[in-house]
Amino acid sequence: MEFNEFFVQGMALLGAGIAMVAGFGQGIGEGFAAGKGAEAVGRNPEASGKIQSIMVLGIALAETTGIFALVVAILLIFVKG
Amino acid sequence: MEFNEFFVQGMALLGAGIAMVAGFGQGIGEGFAAGKGAEAVGRNPEASGKIQSIMVLGIALAETTGIFALVVAILLIFVKG
Amino acid sequence: MEFNEFFVQGMALLGAGIAMVAGFGQGIGEGFAAGKGAEAVGRNPEASGKIQSIMVLGIALAETTGIFALVVAILLIFVKG
Amino acid sequence: MEFNEFFVQGMALLGAGIAMVAGFGQGIGEGFAAGKGAEAVGRNPEASGKIQSIMVLGIALAETTGIFALVVAILLIFVKG
Amino acid sequence: MEFNEFFVQGMALLGAGIAMVAGFGQGIGEGFAAGKGAEAVGRNPEASGKIQSIMVLGIALAETTGIFALVVAILLIFVKG
Repeated sequence: MEFNEFFVQGMALLGAGIAMVAGFGQGIGEGFAAGKGAEAVGRNPEASGKIQSIMVLGIALAETTGIFALVVAILLIFVKG
Repeated sequence: MEFNEFFVQGMALLGAGIAMVAGFGQGIGEGFAAGKGAEAVGRNPEASGKIQSIMVLGIALAETTGIFALVVAILLIFVKG
Repeated sequence: MEFNEFFVQGMALLGAGIAMVAGFGQGIGEGFAAGKGAEAVGRNPEASGKIQSIMVLGIALAETTGIFALVVAILLIFVKG
Repeated sequence: MEFNEFFVQGMALLGAGIAMVAGFGQGIGEGFAAGKGAEAVGRNPEASGKIQSIMVLGIALAETTGIFALVVAILLIFVKG
Repeated sequence: MEFNEFFVQGMALLGAGIAMVAGFGQGIGEGFAAGKGAEAVGRNPEASGKIQSIMVLGIALAETTGIFALVVAILLIFVKG
């Protein structure tokens, strides 16, 4: 048995799948933000515009590392896979 | 034993399965949002429309990385699998 | 020993099993939503209709990534397994 | 079987994928910050500017290790992969 | 099969990727600090300067192990990889 380019491709594709596991963090964290946003609007419906603004801003920032993982997975699949 | 295209396919399919593990984060986070939405409506039923709007918006954003994982899994299965 | 189509099938089926691990997130999150729904109805029984609506909507959204995992697992079993 | 440069490349690419798993922490933590920001604005909408400032500052600091992981993954893919 | 310098390099690069997974802790912990900072500013906006000082100090201390991981990963990639 010899390691060859097929081994490299296989590891790249396995790595792409593993990278996506990162996405569960965004699911938990951004879902928490959605829940706290709903709670805040329930308590103070008049401030719903401001609440939504800061919630969406925070979620967008939390999303970034999920996008990093997607970029790395796409690189692994199409450049090295 | 030699690494060949079958090894690549096998790793792609294993990676597709691993990628989907990301989805448990959406389950926890979005379920939290659903619970907080129910709690908020219970306290302030008149604001249920606004509560539902921000809850669904937040959940939709939280869903994105789960969809990224699905896209990567589909790519791994049908392009490289 | 050589990697062949049986290795691909084996990895596909292993991946299908791993994918379903995602489901524990739905179990936690949707169970939390169910608990908060029950709590909210206990506090404000007159709003039970509205509470149920938003709880079911949120749970349906939380369910999606669990369904994604199921679809990927089915694909891995019947298309590649 | 002999370990050769293909083994090195394969491990580099697998490592790149594993590195990105770090990103789930940012998802959880920064999403928590987004939720607490929404909660704080709901309680005290007049302070939304100050709340947003400290939230964004904190998230930017939390983001750093996610960026470290991305840098390492890119190095592994393009320098060693 | 014989272990040789390629095996060493491969393990070094895999280790570099695994080291970065540490970064998820900083993401969770520092994001928690950011969220609590936002909460504190919302309750007492006049104290925002002092709240920010202690938040940044705490986050800087939490960051250290993430930087340790980065240093180790860089060493593994460029000295041993």
